Amino acid sequence: MRRCIALAQQAAGYTAPNPLVGAVIVNNGEIVGEGYHPKAGEPHAEVFALRAAGEKAQGATVYVNLEPCNHYGRTPPCTEALIQAGVKKVVVGMVDPDPRVAGQGIARLRAAGIEVITGVEEAACLALNAGFCHRVTQGQPWGIFKYAMTLDGKIAATTGHSAWVTGTAARRLVHEVRSHSDGVIVGGNTVRRDNPQLTSHGVSDHNPTRIILSRTLDLPPNAQVWDTTIAPTLLFTTERANPELQRQLGDRGVEIVELPVLEIAEVMQNLGDRGMNQVLWECGGILAAAALQAQAVQKIMAFIAPKIIGGALAPTPVGDLNLSAMTQALTLKNPTLTAIDGDWLIEGEL
Amino acid sequence: MRRCIALAQQAAGYTAPNPLVGAVIVNNGEIVGEGYHPKAGEPHAEVFALRAAGEKAQGATVYVNLEPCNHYGRTPPCTEALIQAGVKKVVVGMVDPDPRVAGQGIARLRAAGIEVITGVEEAACLALNAGFCHRVTQGQPWGIFKYAMTLDGKIAATTGHSAWVTGTAARRLVHEVRSHSDGVIVGGNTVRRDNPQLTSHGVSDHNPTRIILSRTLDLPPNAQVWDTTIAPTLLFTTERANPELQRQLGDRGVEIVELPVLEIAEVMQNLGDRGMNQVLWECGGILAAAALQAQAVQKIMAFIAPKIIGGALAPTPVGDLNLSAMTQALTLKNPTLTAIDGDWLIEGEL
Repeated sequence: MRRCIALAQQAAGYTAPNPLVGAVIVNNGEIVGEGYHPKAGEPHAEVFALRAAGEKAQGATVYVNLEPCNHYGRTPPCTEALIQAGVKKVVVGMVDPDPRVAGQGIARLRAAGIEVITGVEEAACLALNAGFCHRVTQGQPWGIFKYAMTLDGKIAATTGHSAWVTGTAARRLVHEVRSHSDGVIVGGNTVRRDNPQLTSHGVSDHNPTRIILSRTLDLPPNAQVWDTTIAPTLLFTTERANPELQRQLGDRGVEIVELPVLEIAEVMQNLGDRGMNQVLWECGGILAAAALQAQAVQKIMAFIAPKIIGGALAPTPVGDLNLSAMTQALTLKNPTLTAIDGDWLIEGEL
Repeated sequence: MRRCIALAQQAAGYTAPNPLVGAVIVNNGEIVGEGYHPKAGEPHAEVFALRAAGEKAQGATVYVNLEPCNHYGRTPPCTEALIQAGVKKVVVGMVDPDPRVAGQGIARLRAAGIEVITGVEEAACLALNAGFCHRVTQGQPWGIFKYAMTLDGKIAATTGHSAWVTGTAARRLVHEVRSHSDGVIVGGNTVRRDNPQLTSHGVSDHNPTRIILSRTLDLPPNAQVWDTTIAPTLLFTTERANPELQRQLGDRGVEIVELPVLEIAEVMQNLGDRGMNQVLWECGGILAAAALQAQAVQKIMAFIAPKIIGGALAPTPVGDLNLSAMTQALTLKNPTLTAIDGDWLIEGEL
């Protein structure tokens, strides 16, 4: 199963709206076929593994991290392919929470006389597809809120200067997380102050969609995020905000969504409808607080640099949450810590 | 030498203005005597170890983490006691930076025909007496700035509520650090808002002196820190500030120092003159920033709790340092991280 997960992870960032899936076929104690789902529209992991195994799939055991599908999507159901190939046993990491599957794949295999075992390395399988599982059950992408702060809790100096809080290794890890995400979200302040590119900076071919939230659209027309030749850009704004800039950005290939009121819940619904499984909040404290309050953040990734910048009014990672007592603080579940070349990363789910 | 350090550490918090010293006497591969300096005014480590060794000190090797003294203080010089006892060799962790010693002890031993080796486990010996070494060379106590913050960099909610940021294990460790310190410093804001006790809460018999810095002395007359039956309290204020409260506090045993201007440098000089080796800054961000700017902080101990409280105006650990670019941040030397029952401690020297 660990091998299935490793295979599946090779396609991280490429599969949305689909999950990450890897499959391994074993016959007489020998691996006879492997495969993973590379991208939506392409065959599923099981199909690649069956192809590789050929006749050796007959009587074999198939390991797969997610329940095989039983419906016609862009490709035929995997259950039928497994039955056709004459496999004897299927070991499933986790049941697919997608309402179109949700146990029906397993039921179909069992009905065809195939032995099915479920719930193997389930926690690791769930973690692998946290984004997909969240979207198919909640209708919205899984949100990760990432920030980098000094040891005294600042994301920038009082002046707004923030380049750089952490070192190159930590920043490279952020680029990797971007490459595994379907979207990166920032607000207008970040575009104005930092003018970021928000790409994966070459760590992978995949760049997430840059998602900009700006009520007023009072933004510089020459910001790097408007260059859609590098990566796609999706702008959420309010109706009739800055029509002249909207026209310019439209011409440059930026997709614009005008909402009557710019609300996080509506943005997340929209992103879920687009099949985005995982989005990365890389915004400042005001938008981060709004995202946390709208429950659009499921995981925190806090990078901490061992330096002190000071500043009573220097920006901090999270704005007002209207919590008055320390006992009301949001606590991370099972937080973990990783040392990254002189910086630290604390992460955990909310 | 590690054994010397372990012996010495037993007296942490009790020896100021003296250093922490442990001594081990070895004869024919066997430990024949051990000792440590328990408290100013009592005999030095070497004397206890020589007493324990008795005649077995003859021809023995003495290990001691700090150079033996060669001057008459409250006790006679250790060099003479070692020469009298007929020891053959002395292994010294580090040369004593105290100008009254500074190599003279070693010179005296060598002149008497004793072999002396120096610089053994020197880094550990220096760390053990960081406070003492700082004071005898700089005239001021070694300052540790300790704070506890949430993962979003706040030391309290916007309301000021801060009980508690970290869990019991981290707070107990703070009580231990207090018990090893000669003083704990806070400003008036902390007394008004948190009304702390600032004791070692029973982890040791030793309580540090509570040092309160308040320009205006606009403080509640019933604060816990004014109760000198628990621990001594030393107040620094400005001339003629709140004479009525000064009278009340004087009656309750609080020592009051009036300065024309309340400046950190003068306070530190005063504490150095009192022989304080180590003080713990447990203040809010404004005073912490002033202490950092006055170079009264040599070490940072940052406790981080995996929780998010939010608040654009919630207090953070360090106020204005007048640093405008992230590249100007103060960086910690060789920072280390320790997991403490669900919280984390990042510490390092400036």
